[in-house]
Amino acid sequence: MRRFKLSKAFTLIESGPVILVTTNDGKKNNIMTISWHMVQDFTPKFVIVTGPWNESYAALIKTKECVLAIPTVDMIDKVVGIGTCSGTQTDKFKTFDLTPLKAKHVRAPLIKECLANIECRVVDVIAKHNMVVLSGVAAYFDTVRKETRTFHAVGDGTFVTDGRKIDRRTMMKAKLSDGVL
Amino acid sequence: MRRFKLSKAFTLIESGPVILVTTNDGKKNNIMTISWHMVQDFTPKFVIVTGPWNESYAALIKTKECVLAIPTVDMIDKVVGIGTCSGTQTDKFKTFDLTPLKAKHVRAPLIKECLANIECRVVDVIAKHNMVVLSGVAAYFDTVRKETRTFHAVGDGTFVTDGRKIDRRTMMKAKLSDGVL
Repeated sequence: MRRFKLSKAFTLIESGPVILVTTNDGKKNNIMTISWHMVQDFTPKFVIVTGPWNESYAALIKTKECVLAIPTVDMIDKVVGIGTCSGTQTDKFKTFDLTPLKAKHVRAPLIKECLANIECRVVDVIAKHNMVVLSGVAAYFDTVRKETRTFHAVGDGTFVTDGRKIDRRTMMKAKLSDGVL
Repeated sequence: MRRFKLSKAFTLIESGPVILVTTNDGKKNNIMTISWHMVQDFTPKFVIVTGPWNESYAALIKTKECVLAIPTVDMIDKVVGIGTCSGTQTDKFKTFDLTPLKAKHVRAPLIKECLANIECRVVDVIAKHNMVVLSGVAAYFDTVRKETRTFHAVGDGTFVTDGRKIDRRTMMKAKLSDGVL
């Protein structure tokens, strides 16, 4: 897991993959699966939809910290499993055979098996819309991993894997943020 | 373009494709390209990141209406083109050879060439985070179209096409919203 330029960290999320969100409430680590999220600015900021129905929510709000971890398609059954059980009864790292790594700025752990991780601080909670605004403070990318395809939830129990890449960098040049190049 | 169940309309957006947003300010139609968006609830509600730097923003705020149109990968050059020019100088429907169709509840037009369209009303503007919350009021899907693969922006000028579908409906059953089945 190598450091990844913070000014490029939004590119880990913009395509809309299913992601994992880790928290630590001071006693234990937890993980939730999220597909309702977006980039909010290049610095980077992110928004996730979550609320009291997620067990991780209390830890997120109390500690104002989390890690966004980006899994790949070979991890789909772990990711769906994490999303369909509760951290109240389960140590999700143990159950799903995932390795917590110490983060630098937050207590929430990175996930070693993921393609990338972004340490985040909560900068705002928009309770009436169940939205939490996050600011990324450090990012990491596994440069030796073979499987790099993420996957996307449709919302009906099916998922779509990353397919072919298309390059439109020349057309997009004037619109790209400075930090991405 | 057939009517599509509103309770399933969030599944058109959840995977995070690049989308087009149409508006009509009372005088003319406009289109913008967006990849910073997410589902906010199943009813459905959506959130998009936009602001005064987009020419469509004034019409969106004034009329409190728009259409989210979902393009497919064969339309990528039109979509990137729309995202890299301004509606001030350009009639984007004409320039990119797209056909506006009359919507039922809003003045903003559907785009005939897209895979799907969702008529939306603005329900909230969170100015400090450049977010607009939308409520979907009608949805449409082109059931005869051959190309159905959407595409996702990475943010660095590259894009990823929808790849293989993976079915986890059995594992996800308890978590799916009633309206999606």
